[in-house]
Amino acid sequence: MLQHVPDVLTAEELAEARRLLAKASWVDGRVTAGTQAAIVKNNQQLPENAPEIRALRQLVHMALSRNPLFFSTALPSRILPPFFNRYIGDTNHYGFHVDNAMRMMPDGSGYVRADVSATLFLSEPDEYEGGELMIEDTFGRHAFKFKAGSMVVYPSSSVHQVTPVTKGARVACFMFIQSMVRDAEKRRLLYDMDISLAQLRQTVGESEAVVHLTGVYHNLLRLWAE
Amino acid sequence: MLQHVPDVLTAEELAEARRLLAKASWVDGRVTAGTQAAIVKNNQQLPENAPEIRALRQLVHMALSRNPLFFSTALPSRILPPFFNRYIGDTNHYGFHVDNAMRMMPDGSGYVRADVSATLFLSEPDEYEGGELMIEDTFGRHAFKFKAGSMVVYPSSSVHQVTPVTKGARVACFMFIQSMVRDAEKRRLLYDMDISLAQLRQTVGESEAVVHLTGVYHNLLRLWAE
Amino acid sequence: MLQHVPDVLTAEELAEARRLLAKASWVDGRVTAGTQAAIVKNNQQLPENAPEIRALRQLVHMALSRNPLFFSTALPSRILPPFFNRYIGDTNHYGFHVDNAMRMMPDGSGYVRADVSATLFLSEPDEYEGGELMIEDTFGRHAFKFKAGSMVVYPSSSVHQVTPVTKGARVACFMFIQSMVRDAEKRRLLYDMDISLAQLRQTVGESEAVVHLTGVYHNLLRLWAE
Amino acid sequence: MLQHVPDVLTAEELAEARRLLAKASWVDGRVTAGTQAAIVKNNQQLPENAPEIRALRQLVHMALSRNPLFFSTALPSRILPPFFNRYIGDTNHYGFHVDNAMRMMPDGSGYVRADVSATLFLSEPDEYEGGELMIEDTFGRHAFKFKAGSMVVYPSSSVHQVTPVTKGARVACFMFIQSMVRDAEKRRLLYDMDISLAQLRQTVGESEAVVHLTGVYHNLLRLWAE
Amino acid sequence: MLQHVPDVLTAEELAEARRLLAKASWVDGRVTAGTQAAIVKNNQQLPENAPEIRALRQLVHMALSRNPLFFSTALPSRILPPFFNRYIGDTNHYGFHVDNAMRMMPDGSGYVRADVSATLFLSEPDEYEGGELMIEDTFGRHAFKFKAGSMVVYPSSSVHQVTPVTKGARVACFMFIQSMVRDAEKRRLLYDMDISLAQLRQTVGESEAVVHLTGVYHNLLRLWAE
Amino acid sequence: MLQHVPDVLTAEELAEARRLLAKASWVDGRVTAGTQAAIVKNNQQLPENAPEIRALRQLVHMALSRNPLFFSTALPSRILPPFFNRYIGDTNHYGFHVDNAMRMMPDGSGYVRADVSATLFLSEPDEYEGGELMIEDTFGRHAFKFKAGSMVVYPSSSVHQVTPVTKGARVACFMFIQSMVRDAEKRRLLYDMDISLAQLRQTVGESEAVVHLTGVYHNLLRLWAE
Ligand code: NI
Ligand code: NI
Ligand code: NI
Ligand code: NI
Ligand code: NI
Ligand code: NI
Repeated sequence: MLQHVPDVLTAEELAEARRLLAKASWVDGRVTAGTQAAIVKNNQQLPENAPEIRALRQLVHMALSRNPLFFSTALPSRILPPFFNRYIGDTNHYGFHVDNAMRMMPDGSGYVRADVSATLFLSEPDEYEGGELMIEDTFGRHAFKFKAGSMVVYPSSSVHQVTPVTKGARVACFMFIQSMVRDAEKRRLLYDMDISLAQLRQTVGESEAVVHLTGVYHNLLRLWAE
Repeated sequence: MLQHVPDVLTAEELAEARRLLAKASWVDGRVTAGTQAAIVKNNQQLPENAPEIRALRQLVHMALSRNPLFFSTALPSRILPPFFNRYIGDTNHYGFHVDNAMRMMPDGSGYVRADVSATLFLSEPDEYEGGELMIEDTFGRHAFKFKAGSMVVYPSSSVHQVTPVTKGARVACFMFIQSMVRDAEKRRLLYDMDISLAQLRQTVGESEAVVHLTGVYHNLLRLWAE
Repeated sequence: MLQHVPDVLTAEELAEARRLLAKASWVDGRVTAGTQAAIVKNNQQLPENAPEIRALRQLVHMALSRNPLFFSTALPSRILPPFFNRYIGDTNHYGFHVDNAMRMMPDGSGYVRADVSATLFLSEPDEYEGGELMIEDTFGRHAFKFKAGSMVVYPSSSVHQVTPVTKGARVACFMFIQSMVRDAEKRRLLYDMDISLAQLRQTVGESEAVVHLTGVYHNLLRLWAE
Repeated sequence: MLQHVPDVLTAEELAEARRLLAKASWVDGRVTAGTQAAIVKNNQQLPENAPEIRALRQLVHMALSRNPLFFSTALPSRILPPFFNRYIGDTNHYGFHVDNAMRMMPDGSGYVRADVSATLFLSEPDEYEGGELMIEDTFGRHAFKFKAGSMVVYPSSSVHQVTPVTKGARVACFMFIQSMVRDAEKRRLLYDMDISLAQLRQTVGESEAVVHLTGVYHNLLRLWAE
Repeated sequence: MLQHVPDVLTAEELAEARRLLAKASWVDGRVTAGTQAAIVKNNQQLPENAPEIRALRQLVHMALSRNPLFFSTALPSRILPPFFNRYIGDTNHYGFHVDNAMRMMPDGSGYVRADVSATLFLSEPDEYEGGELMIEDTFGRHAFKFKAGSMVVYPSSSVHQVTPVTKGARVACFMFIQSMVRDAEKRRLLYDMDISLAQLRQTVGESEAVVHLTGVYHNLLRLWAE
Repeated sequence: MLQHVPDVLTAEELAEARRLLAKASWVDGRVTAGTQAAIVKNNQQLPENAPEIRALRQLVHMALSRNPLFFSTALPSRILPPFFNRYIGDTNHYGFHVDNAMRMMPDGSGYVRADVSATLFLSEPDEYEGGELMIEDTFGRHAFKFKAGSMVVYPSSSVHQVTPVTKGARVACFMFIQSMVRDAEKRRLLYDMDISLAQLRQTVGESEAVVHLTGVYHNLLRLWAE
């Protein structure tokens, strides 16, 4: 399931993130790619030792932790500290790939399984040309570009790319998220229940049927959550 | 999940079943028990070659196939041809046991996995003393006796017995059912959804939320059904 | 996974199918819809007792059984006898729905779980207006219309509709297929392996690595097939 | 599976727990309920910042960690720090509900999946009227009240309530436990093996069959434990 | 799990099978191999239309259906009609391969998933040289040759071969079996329980512990059987 | 799958480990055995409070963390701190057993599920007689002895023993490893893919088929990793 999550950052947070990134130094993006992905990856990335990275990560974590749509979509259990990248000039694309399955936490405390990937846009769409996030399925390709401060969430198992940036710069934050519910189809099903139950609560209140169906939601989550 | 299914047989069907069984000849019930169950089983059973058995089975099958509560509870995919037994005189009980998991169809066409067991009562409660179906769990025991023509459905994995008949005769039909949904907890969850959605349809009609939740029901069934 | 399967029918088969359907009598399509789907279904369908239905079904079955792309995509284990429907005049659409999970075989011999749905187009795209098969996901909707004799295969769990036919008539055959591999994600993965191994066989022949990976394909199928 | 675990606390521990709770200040119990449960929850609870809570929690943890019956029943892998509540006066009940599936640890270090719930009674049964823990299944309701220092363990997926306390006060400790073995049916099966193997060890010692069956127990646990 | 099943055929059955095969005509063995296996398969096989094949198959089926060790090891649910092959002269080996996962029944009635493969030896070991069934694992290779009338059962997922027959002729029957329990590890676990419970029954009889553990066996089978 | 991992330690590391162990004091090995294993375990072990244990564990951890064959075979997610044992004199064997499933971390921070066991040999084969690691399957037993600094990795569910040391001393390090992929058959399949893809990369480079199959590897890992 692909999900657009609008307005993840407030205007203040977005401005602060852009301010921090404006003065940052970038390195070659291949450092965080898997063996294979390194071949197709050609962009820039904020290094682990960048002085701005701590504040940026905290800013993003706080924004995510208060966002109910993100929670309901991704059911996050562990999030790898967010990365920041830039597509500009000659370092301008990331070819088709599938994200690596397992990522070691930077502090070595264990692995995060990449079930869900997310891109948080930090440049406005009119600040660059190209640079679309393109996700492939059999019947063609979906291409996305959202306004700064918004996010798109998609399964890490999908084949996807960032098309070449032909003008300007595209700065974004990307994340790998281990979900409580590993299987995308099951997450979609829980999301559907969640949305429908919210609608019913507005229509009929906490009726007996709604109470029972909420119990079903929790028992499904119990059946599936890791 | 234990489920009482009232009035499975019509008055006419019940009378017809009792008429057929009144003239039948019974044999030792150990023939259909597993190795271990044979030790605790002491009752009478209608033999496979009894002239009445074909009509009796057809009667029961037709009654089950029109019963929505039975369907929603058991989600039957294959039913072993029903057996008929009698507890009377010295052949008066069936001690604690777990039903065997796999049963060969009488025609050798394959196995039925016993997920769900069912007892269809054919004697009225006041026609015998004792003869309760007793199902055990950690906090004690549930004992059941229902009026003739009614049924009780329970997981084949439970530990259960028929207590000694101390007076009169207890005639019943028992069945082993392979369910589309093997796991009792998942069947209960689908049953809860089914009942709650029926309530909502009466309250709010086919609203968008109800349509979506019905889709969730079918997608869960698709996920689990064998 | 959505899959376009071109040229399922030969020109002769297509002509024969159209000839048979041209003289057929149609009935209300709600007869094969589930409780809920009946509300949104408004089309015509060939009745089970139509004299042409047997020849039509045999023709479709033979076409499917020789099609390797269909096999590799759907990994069919049981196919419900195909239905034929027509959208025309006032009976011109089938609103958004999820296909029912379990379908009884017409001969009562058991259930088919609808894992995969398929539409075989029998009218040419220029014979009608509207009548697109529209499949929904979060980021919007895919709409399809293929030339006569071609097929589209998609997961039965998806939300889909046939948009109103505003001019002409749209005749098609639709099918519910139980797959050896229930889960759409796993089917996609096996399909990817199958295609990649075929490419490798052309490049490097039956090398040791290709032989081992073919063994992996079969051991995955063994792990997942029902 | 419901399990009564007697004498979890020693007389000294019980006295100490009651002494600590006697001087504590209570707050509204809705703080730890899920959105829905908050509607039916009407009791008092020890707040996270209560000065007594640390000593109480340690006392309970130590009692649990030495109890083999609790271990064998619940196979605990993570335990949410225990809560303490009181039903008294107007705040006297907690209506039917299913426990929420996922609970964040108070220190934010991750989620505990509530597979198993447990109530440790801290008031003697004759100190209050009503206040039964009532667990529902299709054939009716089980109601429990145990002596102070004893515990009852039950699946968090069950529908349960605490009936109104009509006289006196009911003080108890309740816990949410993530089990190594998520599925209640599998936990019951392992529990059955464990008990039966203990019996066999007393009868026949470490015979070859007992050694093999113990290996089976561990290989089942390996197959299921998370 | 590899399992030797001795004396599957009686002396009379073996003589009858050899008599029928002595007069049979053989064809190229590649007809029943998968695409890939055909490359490494070089032996002879009894064709489907051989006049002797029906009697031979019935003979083997009857022998299997009365063999408790075969049943407990393989837990067979569907058996593809047995094939008969001969390694002789220039058609003398079948190189390393993994058996195909899905096999269509000769009558087209559906697929058999090859979980378990079995070879029933029909030549005595001293009638040929070479011709060993060799099964590979990481630490080397097991090679087997059994006396006529005996069988070896092994997982179809293993990599195996028949080494070249350098003298004489090796005639054997081979089978693909779909098991009630797909996973080899789970079959081994059930087999261990079965054997251990048989030992305990001889030592301590139907004690309470043995009765409970037999219930556990059936509940595990119920959990896993398809 | 059994896997020999040669040269895990460098010559320097091996010398350092032997130097540390030469001066260590040993205790009875039963302290780390399960209830049952204690009966068959008769060897010596380095105690938790041995002054050398910290340096030894760090040395082994570093050696493992740089070994790609170990990683690909075991896919380790958590490793219980390694133990060190000695078979000498009267404390010279460890009879047949299955390893316990769940082990508490020494610091109480949670359980490690023993999916994979490993023995790292620290004595040279000619320093002792007997002392073979013997792993059992139905068709007999595999016995191993490797040169110092080498390791053997095997499923913890297998039945295995260390045969009596009849001369000299056998010093080794043993480990319990929780794998990302619990099931041995699935680990073997991923290992096969990994090896075959490495071969293909050398032959045909990062062709489209190789890129897709690498995506399949990661999506399988995502499907299975815990
Ligand atoms: Ni990516
Ligand atoms: Ni029974
Ligand atoms: Ni449809
Ligand atoms: Ni509760
Ligand atoms: Ni083979
Ligand atoms: Ni061991």
